[in-house]
Amino acid sequence: MQLQLRIQKIQTRLMEVSAEACLLSTTVNLLYVAGRVINGFCYIPAEGDAQFFIRRPAGLESDTLRYIRKVEDIPDLIKADGIKLPKTLLVESGEMSHLDWLRIQTCFPATTLMDGTADLRVVRSVKTDYECSQIRASAEAHVRAYRRIPSIFRPGMTDIEFSIEIERLMRLEGNKGLFRTFGDMEAFFGSVLTGDNAAVASPYDFSLGGAGDPTNPIGANGTLLAAGQSVMVDMCGNFTGYLDDITRTFSVGHLPEKAYKAHQVAIDIERRVQEAMKPGAICQDLYELALNLAKKAGLEDCFMGTTQQAKFIGHGVGLVINEPPVLAIRSRDMLQSNMVLAIEPKFVIKGVGAVGLEDTYIVTEAGGEQLSLLEPAIIDLMH
Amino acid sequence: MQLQLRIQKIQTRLMEVSAEACLLSTTVNLLYVAGRVINGFCYIPAEGDAQFFIRRPAGLESDTLRYIRKVEDIPDLIKADGIKLPKTLLVESGEMSHLDWLRIQTCFPATTLMDGTADLRVVRSVKTDYECSQIRASAEAHVRAYRRIPSIFRPGMTDIEFSIEIERLMRLEGNKGLFRTFGDMEAFFGSVLTGDNAAVASPYDFSLGGAGDPTNPIGANGTLLAAGQSVMVDMCGNFTGYLDDITRTFSVGHLPEKAYKAHQVAIDIERRVQEAMKPGAICQDLYELALNLAKKAGLEDCFMGTTQQAKFIGHGVGLVINEPPVLAIRSRDMLQSNMVLAIEPKFVIKGVGAVGLEDTYIVTEAGGEQLSLLEPAIIDLMH
Repeated sequence: MQLQLRIQKIQTRLMEVSAEACLLSTTVNLLYVAGRVINGFCYIPAEGDAQFFIRRPAGLESDTLRYIRKVEDIPDLIKADGIKLPKTLLVESGEMSHLDWLRIQTCFPATTLMDGTADLRVVRSVKTDYECSQIRASAEAHVRAYRRIPSIFRPGMTDIEFSIEIERLMRLEGNKGLFRTFGDMEAFFGSVLTGDNAAVASPYDFSLGGAGDPTNPIGANGTLLAAGQSVMVDMCGNFTGYLDDITRTFSVGHLPEKAYKAHQVAIDIERRVQEAMKPGAICQDLYELALNLAKKAGLEDCFMGTTQQAKFIGHGVGLVINEPPVLAIRSRDMLQSNMVLAIEPKFVIKGVGAVGLEDTYIVTEAGGEQLSLLEPAIIDLMH
Repeated sequence: MQLQLRIQKIQTRLMEVSAEACLLSTTVNLLYVAGRVINGFCYIPAEGDAQFFIRRPAGLESDTLRYIRKVEDIPDLIKADGIKLPKTLLVESGEMSHLDWLRIQTCFPATTLMDGTADLRVVRSVKTDYECSQIRASAEAHVRAYRRIPSIFRPGMTDIEFSIEIERLMRLEGNKGLFRTFGDMEAFFGSVLTGDNAAVASPYDFSLGGAGDPTNPIGANGTLLAAGQSVMVDMCGNFTGYLDDITRTFSVGHLPEKAYKAHQVAIDIERRVQEAMKPGAICQDLYELALNLAKKAGLEDCFMGTTQQAKFIGHGVGLVINEPPVLAIRSRDMLQSNMVLAIEPKFVIKGVGAVGLEDTYIVTEAGGEQLSLLEPAIIDLMH
C-alpha cells in the first residue's frame, strides 16, 4: 500500500512530463518502490501495474516480480504481457553509467530515452506520511544516541577516538551504518570537527569539511580534544533506512565569548528559518534570510566555513542525505508540505572551531515541525 | 614518484589500446593518480605530463594542477598549453553517468570517446611495491583487530551487538570505515553471519549473504549467538586507503563434527589455491581446483552458499574490494606478479552456519604470499 502510493506519485510525474513509462535501475530508486534493496529493474507504465525484473536475491515471490538474467530479457517479457513497448521511457541518465544507458537504448531501439534523474528526486522530495514517520523514528533514535555523548568523553581523547565511541552509541541505538548520498560524495557516519580542523576545505559539497586523511578527507584527523576548543558532531541518522541529520556542538571546558555569541546567532537563524519554512516559501529566500542574519551579526566571513564557504544552509533528507530541495543561493525551488529538510547554520571561529547546529524538520502550514528534539546549546564535556 | 609510476602504467595501457589520452573523473581512479580524494579531473596524454583540473577542495597547489568551475573549462586549458585535443580519449563509460559522458563528448566534439573502465581496472590490478606495502599494512592492522574479537564476546549477545564491538575494534586499530566497491554493491564494514542466517541469499555478488534488513540486506539480522552455532566475521580492512579482506569463523561452544570437517576442507582448499597462485595461472583453473576439492569432500551442495551459490572463490583487492581478477567459473584471466587477491573458500552448514575462511595474498613466483597472518582454525568464543 505504502509502495503503491509511491509508484502512483511516479506515475503522476510520468504524465506531467509526457513519458509513457520509466525503467528504474539504481539502488535508491528501487528501494523507494520495492521497500528493499534489490538487484534488477522496475518498469512503471504511466498507467497500469509496475513490474519488477530481478537478478538477485534469489527466492523473492510476488505477482509483479519475475527473475531475469540480464536487461536484454525485459522487452520480450513486457511484450509477452500484451503491452506495447513505450515510445518514451524515463531512465536515470544522471546516475546510471553510460554503458548501462547504452544497453537499455539497445533493448528499446524505437524508444526515446528521457532523463528522469531530477524528476525522480523531485517525486521523492515530498514524503508520504509513512516516510515522515520513518524519518521521525530515525531522528528520535539519533537524539537518544547524541544524549549519551557526554558519557563517553574522556580527557585526553583525540577526535578520532571520540568519534569511534559516538559511532558505537549510534549503532547501539540501531543505526544501520550505511550513509547514502547522491552524486560523488562518500561518507562514513559523518564528521567530528575539533578546533581549527573545522576550517579545512572539503572535496565534497558538505556544509563544512575537516581534513580527515587523504583517502577519506572528511572530519576527524587525530586532533587532541584540548581545553578551549569546540567539537562539532555532525552524523547521519540511518535508523530506519530513512535518514535524518543532526549536528550538535560540544566544548572542552569554557570557550571564548565569541563562540557562544556566534552559536546563539546560529540558533536564532535556525528558529527564523523554521518559522518561515511553510509551503510556498522559496528556497533562496530562506538562504538569504539566514545569510542576512549572519551579516547583521558581523559573522558573514565565517558563515558556513572560511577557506571554502558552503552556499546553502539546508537540504532535503530522505533515502539519501542530499535530497532536493536545497536552501541555496539562486534556488527558485518552492517548499511543499511534507518535504523534510535539515537546517544547519554553522560558523567557524579561528582558534576555537565550529559552532552552530543542525536539526531535521517537516514542512507544514505552521512552519517547520522539528523532528530532532534536542537542546540546542553548546554542551560542555568537562561538566 | 609513487604516483608517477601509476600514471606511467596508465600511459602504457593507453598506447596498447591506441588511445591518445584519458580523462579520469571517478573518485577511485582519481585517488589512484592523485593519492588523495579530489573533485575534478585528471587528463593523461599517452606521452607527456598528466594535468589535474580541480573543483574542490580549495587551496591545493602543484605545477600540474589548475582549478576549474566545470568540465567545459578543460579543452581551452589544454589548448592554451599548445597541446592538440586528442582524436581518441579513454573515459570511464562504465562508471560515469550517461549525462557526464555526454558533457565530455560535447566538450570534445571531434574526439572519439573510448570506454576505459576495464582497462583502468586491469592497470590497477597489478600493484606497485608501494601499493603492496599499503595492503600489507592494512592486513596487519586487520589481524590485530581480529585477534581481539574473543575479548569482546559476552554470552547472550546478538550478532548485531557482536558486530558493533568488532567494528569498534577495527576503528581503534585505524580502520577508516569507508568500504569502497565497484558497481552496485553497498556495504558497511562487511558481515557477521550466525547460524542459518548465513544461508540467506544476497542482492549483491558477495561470497555469502545474510538477511541484514530490507534496506541494508547483508550480514547480521539480530540472531542470538546461541550454543552450537558458527559466527563468521568477514569485514573489509581499510586501514591505509588500500583494502585487505579477512574472514574468520568463531563458534559458540562446540559445533557438530561436520562443521569442523568442512572448515578443514576450506583450509585445505585455500592452501592448494595459495600454492597454485603463481604468475601465469588461469583464474578458472584455480576456481575449478577449489570446486573439485569441495566435490571430492562431498560438500559441493553447500560450497559458497546453498540457496544462491557464488561462482567464484577469490577476487582482487586494492582501492576497492572487488578488483580484477576474479577466480571465477569461465574466467580466462591470467595471474601476474604483484596482483593481490583474497581467497575465500566457505561452506554453509544447515543448522550450524557458515564455516571457512578468507585471507589476502600477493601473487609471487613461489605462490601466494599471505599478508593476513592469523591462525585459520575455528575459535571457540566460550573458551
